[in-house]
Amino acid sequence: MNENSFTRERRRLTDLALGKANLNVRRFYNLDSSTYSAGALDAKTKEMLGLVASLVLRCDDCIRYHLGQCFALQLSDEELQEVFSVALVVGGSIVIPHHRRAVDYWEQLKNPTTS
Amino acid sequence: MNENSFTRERRRLTDLALGKANLNVRRFYNLDSSTYSAGALDAKTKEMLGLVASLVLRCDDCIRYHLGQCFALQLSDEELQEVFSVALVVGGSIVIPHHRRAVDYWEQLKNPTTS
Amino acid sequence: MNENSFTRERRRLTDLALGKANLNVRRFYNLDSSTYSAGALDAKTKEMLGLVASLVLRCDDCIRYHLGQCFALQLSDEELQEVFSVALVVGGSIVIPHHRRAVDYWEQLKNPTTS
Amino acid sequence: MNENSFTRERRRLTDLALGKANLNVRRFYNLDSSTYSAGALDAKTKEMLGLVASLVLRCDDCIRYHLGQCFALQLSDEELQEVFSVALVVGGSIVIPHHRRAVDYWEQLKNPTTS
Amino acid sequence: MNENSFTRERRRLTDLALGKANLNVRRFYNLDSSTYSAGALDAKTKEMLGLVASLVLRCDDCIRYHLGQCFALQLSDEELQEVFSVALVVGGSIVIPHHRRAVDYWEQLKNPTTS
Amino acid sequence: MNENSFTRERRRLTDLALGKANLNVRRFYNLDSSTYSAGALDAKTKEMLGLVASLVLRCDDCIRYHLGQCFALQLSDEELQEVFSVALVVGGSIVIPHHRRAVDYWEQLKNPTTS
Repeated sequence: MNENSFTRERRRLTDLALGKANLNVRRFYNLDSSTYSAGALDAKTKEMLGLVASLVLRCDDCIRYHLGQCFALQLSDEELQEVFSVALVVGGSIVIPHHRRAVDYWEQLKNPTTS
Repeated sequence: MNENSFTRERRRLTDLALGKANLNVRRFYNLDSSTYSAGALDAKTKEMLGLVASLVLRCDDCIRYHLGQCFALQLSDEELQEVFSVALVVGGSIVIPHHRRAVDYWEQLKNPTTS
Repeated sequence: MNENSFTRERRRLTDLALGKANLNVRRFYNLDSSTYSAGALDAKTKEMLGLVASLVLRCDDCIRYHLGQCFALQLSDEELQEVFSVALVVGGSIVIPHHRRAVDYWEQLKNPTTS
Repeated sequence: MNENSFTRERRRLTDLALGKANLNVRRFYNLDSSTYSAGALDAKTKEMLGLVASLVLRCDDCIRYHLGQCFALQLSDEELQEVFSVALVVGGSIVIPHHRRAVDYWEQLKNPTTS
Repeated sequence: MNENSFTRERRRLTDLALGKANLNVRRFYNLDSSTYSAGALDAKTKEMLGLVASLVLRCDDCIRYHLGQCFALQLSDEELQEVFSVALVVGGSIVIPHHRRAVDYWEQLKNPTTS
Repeated sequence: MNENSFTRERRRLTDLALGKANLNVRRFYNLDSSTYSAGALDAKTKEMLGLVASLVLRCDDCIRYHLGQCFALQLSDEELQEVFSVALVVGGSIVIPHHRRAVDYWEQLKNPTTS
């Protein structure tokens, strides 16, 4: 998959932020990265955890990032729908706008020529 | 009122999301729709409840949707201001950017030629 | 209705907090009080707005306060259920524990001898 | 496992709340229950999703409920720690008090004679 | 520093919102403004408090506003990094997208010709 | 100051949680601790940042912890009131119950014989 406009801008801003970061900010970014490595749970399960947390906290950037990871780890459409259903019932209709955009982004990941 | 760009994009994404949805996701969307039907409370009161909840939870899409419903149900400017005042005092200044955009959108609903 | 243990403790803490408050803290408390006075919307509608906002933001103290106000303004059980249904669908299952306690408190307001 | 004081009070309040509920409130509770049934994802994975969502949204009652379900589904200590690590890094130190209480409750589930 | 596109649009919307506001909405906006005046704490410290609160509540508009104020009050890069580190650890990785954009905006404030 | 019941229980739970923690959970707790050390900002300012963040995110445990740190660092009553005023205006009336309890706890810190 080629890098899309979302991941390019995300990379530019991450590089900028880390370039200016103090030690504790860098440590936080490092901890964030290492959290999703496979361990007692496999990487796909951990990305689903990150996705559902991002959905109920309603962060589009975080949702897109975890959707990209889930896609790379071959989460099926049916599994994704189950993550969505948990996020909607826990987080409520306030999650719906993020859900709609998440579905749209997932389709773009599956059909990158249309993005 | 003609459909504006917000409602058009919302409709496109809703159709997409429901087209991919599993049973529980569809049930959630259905429950969301039926919640605002007139019952012991009239529809306008229920839309005001949806609006104030959307304001304190700070979801611009949800705010716009309920503003559109309130407009169609002929909420007055004075009534709207009272909903805003409750939302601001409960939710705090973090609601202000959403309040500003809500006022702007309400004016567009009242003067659709300018949108 | 006699003052119950919740309202007594709330009054004690409010008196303490205001006794120590600086000007801006006092102004905030005053603005909070004046927000719910009848105006373009009647007091009962404004208390329902405060209640639904408190439910989706999940603050038991705020929920109890607005339930007490709604009770004093003779909100019916059927109207209350409609406020609950909006809060649950907007805020999600994370609101359920607060909903359960709200129902319990409402019953105490209706049957104060059991509290 | 015997029912502990948390689950007993939860059951009492749920019965009360459903006894007073209108149709949409009951539909919401029903949807909440059916969301965690095994489907494309197994029940244990779905409970972990519910748990991480409850942790980042900081609802102790919800956390305890999902811990109870995870325990019944034989989630291992190592798997649980991974769910905690995702919740902490996504939700931040504001989750720590809930994390501490979650660990305490998990130990009670494992050693029910001490509760 | 010349007014940038963010502050121009913010001013337009604030003027619109206040032009339509009722008394309590205006009182809220006034209280918001007066909160950050120097008192027992100096203005720079109060703006840092507003900034960290805006970061953990994840409001980009509020973050930009307080960054502008901090810049005008000559907050150093090192001090800013410490505010960021508190916001990230308290609020979690869900704050990261806002942190990235905050760093970007801060660089624009320092190099206005590039904005 | 002697350890009070809040800090004793907090210590018990922290020891328990760290005793069960995996590497990433421990790293998160360590990062949380190191964040508040004096650097470009002095320790008192950083504790005020932690306090205001805890207030707007409405976490009583976190509020109490930072109040204890602010007390040990000799924050004055007048400075504390200014932190409270920022938290109330940013976070809204939903913060008021936490503010009331914060004032009560501060008085206990100042008069430990009454606790």
